[in-house]
Amino acid sequence: MLAQKKSLILPHPFSTEGGAVLKAAPVAYEEYGRTDGPVILICHGGLSSHHAAGKFADTDLAPGWWDGLIGPGKPFDTARFRILSLNALGGMYGSCSPMTVDPLTGCRYGPLFPTITMRDQVRFAASFLDALGIEKLWCMTGPSMGSLHTLNFAAMYPERIERAVAVATAARMTASGMAMHHLMMNAFRADPGFQAGWYAPGVALGAAKIIAQVIKLYYTSEALYKTLCADTVTHGPGAQAQRAANANAFIQAGLDTAVAAYDANAFIATLSAINTHDLAEGFATVEEGIRRIQCPLLLVNIDSDHEFPPYAAEEVSATLNAARPGQATTRVIHSMWGHIGCIREPEQLARHVSEWLPGCS
Amino acid sequence: MLAQKKSLILPHPFSTEGGAVLKAAPVAYEEYGRTDGPVILICHGGLSSHHAAGKFADTDLAPGWWDGLIGPGKPFDTARFRILSLNALGGMYGSCSPMTVDPLTGCRYGPLFPTITMRDQVRFAASFLDALGIEKLWCMTGPSMGSLHTLNFAAMYPERIERAVAVATAARMTASGMAMHHLMMNAFRADPGFQAGWYAPGVALGAAKIIAQVIKLYYTSEALYKTLCADTVTHGPGAQAQRAANANAFIQAGLDTAVAAYDANAFIATLSAINTHDLAEGFATVEEGIRRIQCPLLLVNIDSDHEFPPYAAEEVSATLNAARPGQATTRVIHSMWGHIGCIREPEQLARHVSEWLPGCS
Repeated sequence: MLAQKKSLILPHPFSTEGGAVLKAAPVAYEEYGRTDGPVILICHGGLSSHHAAGKFADTDLAPGWWDGLIGPGKPFDTARFRILSLNALGGMYGSCSPMTVDPLTGCRYGPLFPTITMRDQVRFAASFLDALGIEKLWCMTGPSMGSLHTLNFAAMYPERIERAVAVATAARMTASGMAMHHLMMNAFRADPGFQAGWYAPGVALGAAKIIAQVIKLYYTSEALYKTLCADTVTHGPGAQAQRAANANAFIQAGLDTAVAAYDANAFIATLSAINTHDLAEGFATVEEGIRRIQCPLLLVNIDSDHEFPPYAAEEVSATLNAARPGQATTRVIHSMWGHIGCIREPEQLARHVSEWLPGCS
Repeated sequence: MLAQKKSLILPHPFSTEGGAVLKAAPVAYEEYGRTDGPVILICHGGLSSHHAAGKFADTDLAPGWWDGLIGPGKPFDTARFRILSLNALGGMYGSCSPMTVDPLTGCRYGPLFPTITMRDQVRFAASFLDALGIEKLWCMTGPSMGSLHTLNFAAMYPERIERAVAVATAARMTASGMAMHHLMMNAFRADPGFQAGWYAPGVALGAAKIIAQVIKLYYTSEALYKTLCADTVTHGPGAQAQRAANANAFIQAGLDTAVAAYDANAFIATLSAINTHDLAEGFATVEEGIRRIQCPLLLVNIDSDHEFPPYAAEEVSATLNAARPGQATTRVIHSMWGHIGCIREPEQLARHVSEWLPGCS
């Protein structure tokens, strides 16, 4: 399946919770499937792009990150649905972010980009749907930050969503995940090249390479390193040195490619927004905040995930099912990939989605 | 209990596995308890000091890191034993390391300090005992790197050790732990201030602060952040922002103090040495390497430890007990402190040690 890069400009100024106004805000997105089908909206993980499925050219090495779920005959079936995948507000891949040129000044927003929240990102997605004339979603889904957008959208716009699938998720951002986010933000801000956010765009900061390595450590698991770096080496002279070299090679693989895409200001805007995720925000109780979600909901967390452990999904489903039995379903992916299992285990995820969808179709 | 800083110079040149010779090598250590008692040797964790118990002055804020285990009437009873705690070869607290002045040149070794291995560190400990005229240990013990020294000493000098307690341990260094070590070493080496190891001594590098934060993330657990940073905040306006601030405050607490003690070259020497830990090194099978340990052995790992999960201790005890039933005992500490539980759970650890010691006394 070939993917195509699309974009639009929001027809109305976008106001943030903090009172800032973004004029002529661009939205980058991709579209797959039949143009007249019911709409499925895909939202990406925090540091990822919206390239969820297909290839831009047959020569691409790999397809989008959820290609196992999106395509003809797949759980999110392009033969049946119109599937949209947008880059989030603050994202590094074309939607309005610190990398965008402010039409008022002709310069990039850079560190002057306003502080944005999880709710801002979700209203941005709603504005994107408005711009396309789409009133209702047949389904909304995404991994990690995309799952948080999905839960918040379902809570904020219950009339616009018929079903939702949240993968690697929680009712509010976890403290461990926030510590990791702050670590990354602190590393960027402390980099001498950061220059209070006025670094030269496109030049990777030294901190970026450390961050990329921490990501590989924190968002995976002990079992992954054991399996890939240690168990693959048979006993003999120099075996332990080889295991150490494997661990270092794994943690450094693809660093240059990874950091080339990193923009520190967009990183900080996005991670700060994720940290504001709390379905309870503005409500008397956590339960009240969660119960705004009215559609059927599938929650899938990964057993080895340090950021969104399975209990975090169970909290959401327990609250929903206490009021409306059967509304929420939780499933667990068994994986050594840790948090990254949300895009690294397409077979398990596709099976859970396929089993769940018919009951709420 | 008051602790006293002691030191000695090894009377003979110390040769490393790699063939380097360290002349007049200093050993920093502390000594507690009765000078004529049977000897217990304490070994510290990789980035820690040998200040295991007591205070240097009554006004010290906190005692040494295993004060709950070492003292009058405690499991390692100073009323009964002579207890020695040494700074490891390559350590940052006074023993021979990159921070030491090379007597041949009058300059610090710095990056010219020879590569050292786990076996070098253990032979260094044996040379220290030789210098004090101590032939046999009643017990050897330590957390993390100290536990690896303990296992290797028991394997290399079975005639010199009567019992051993290894806390947060494994038969060989785990791949996840090696990835973490390489991450830290990569961060130091990539710091522009590192200058190939010729940085100004005593000036903290920028990378050190990032490393100190990664340590707080990787060596603890998700449950810790949840308990300390999130569950302590009651629901209400601004609650999630407070949780995020707590997570950031936790990960940044004490950074200046932590990094003031870090020496990048000593860090690299120590972590590289730990990565060479493999009881199987030089033997036909892993089992053969492990079975050199002949004394009774207690292994205590922590359930939330990403570096040394409980299975890693079980591997050692299963091998030993298959040949000599009852030789090894494993216990698990239940903790939200992750790897740091090896020094953060003195009550549980003291109970396990107290219950085990009588059976092999």
